[in-house]
Amino acid sequence: MKEKTVQRIRNFTTDRDWDQFHSPANLAKSISIEANELLECFQWDENNYDINDVKEELADVIVYCQNMLDKLNLNVDEIVNAKMDKNEKKYPIEKAKGKADKYNKL
Amino acid sequence: MKEKTVQRIRNFTTDRDWDQFHSPANLAKSISIEANELLECFQWDENNYDINDVKEELADVIVYCQNMLDKLNLNVDEIVNAKMDKNEKKYPIEKAKGKADKYNKL
Amino acid sequence: MKEKTVQRIRNFTTDRDWDQFHSPANLAKSISIEANELLECFQWDENNYDINDVKEELADVIVYCQNMLDKLNLNVDEIVNAKMDKNEKKYPIEKAKGKADKYNKL
Amino acid sequence: MKEKTVQRIRNFTTDRDWDQFHSPANLAKSISIEANELLECFQWDENNYDINDVKEELADVIVYCQNMLDKLNLNVDEIVNAKMDKNEKKYPIEKAKGKADKYNKL
Repeated sequence: MKEKTVQRIRNFTTDRDWDQFHSPANLAKSISIEANELLECFQWDENNYDINDVKEELADVIVYCQNMLDKLNLNVDEIVNAKMDKNEKKYPIEKAKGKADKYNKL
Repeated sequence: MKEKTVQRIRNFTTDRDWDQFHSPANLAKSISIEANELLECFQWDENNYDINDVKEELADVIVYCQNMLDKLNLNVDEIVNAKMDKNEKKYPIEKAKGKADKYNKL
Repeated sequence: MKEKTVQRIRNFTTDRDWDQFHSPANLAKSISIEANELLECFQWDENNYDINDVKEELADVIVYCQNMLDKLNLNVDEIVNAKMDKNEKKYPIEKAKGKADKYNKL
Repeated sequence: MKEKTVQRIRNFTTDRDWDQFHSPANLAKSISIEANELLECFQWDENNYDINDVKEELADVIVYCQNMLDKLNLNVDEIVNAKMDKNEKKYPIEKAKGKADKYNKL
């Protein structure tokens, strides 16, 4: 995401004085709620979905993730790279290739 | 997120030949599942959470969001800005300032 | 669910002095968290699931639902029948038969 | 839940010929989606919630749980008691009393 977009998300919150509602717990709830509105696009039919609904709901999830990064002063590249370090160890290519099994069943 | 981090996420998937599992529906489920592992950090106590767990679970949500952007060939700035256009109209500053009400109750 | 099973769930909570943690909000989070552990049984493959995992996770959801009924002094038959009244009106048989559409698209 | 209420839920499905949509995976998604509509009642304020909304959303979760029990031919008392056997072992009273810790941290 471009810095300008990130800044727009931040301004949206501060302009409305909404930081007071953005406790980490409330943001975690919000991410789950929006993730489930996204899931609803695929509730009864996995193949026929409204791409416009998907775009909007996915954007909502991403915006709340950015809100949580901001609230906790986290750097997205830092936390994602730290997790990818772990994932790459948990799922070595030679073992995980072409398999959807969880790491403890590989 | 930096292009380099995005690329690392993409390589992780292609190296393991996991694109076959990444249907939009499966990714929507995965985003919700990880969002709830994040929520679990705040299950019984909203104020005392393990910040390392939060970082990891938030990273997981972000990685699956990136997987979905990739799968559907979506541009993150485009979909987020389109949604922010809507949000700014639904929540005008003068009405929404300092209030956590849903737009239809403002 | 038999009264005896309901009573066992209640005793489990009171024996551990856990009622203090069972705020309605915490129980709502818990229902969502367990619902997503259930969803995880179907994350990458909708047709091959471990029925024992499904049973356990579904039981967890049901137990937390019972905890919420207890916490709010709700009668399950009352709230379910009130909702079924609504559902039957929202989805009249002649319109909804054989269709998975949401009521506002019927 | 009384047998009559359970039967009403079953009739609702069969009258609409909706069993075809009730794959276990679709029901798992539905339980999560409704659980998050319930969670939304507590999104920004844990203490001030609309009890009528809570009743309706909790009823929705319970109805989909019943749908899944029916779909998989599961007996609710059987699966709940089997899970309570496990819970009682994982959380012995003397260790767990008054603590919200996860069993592996007790």
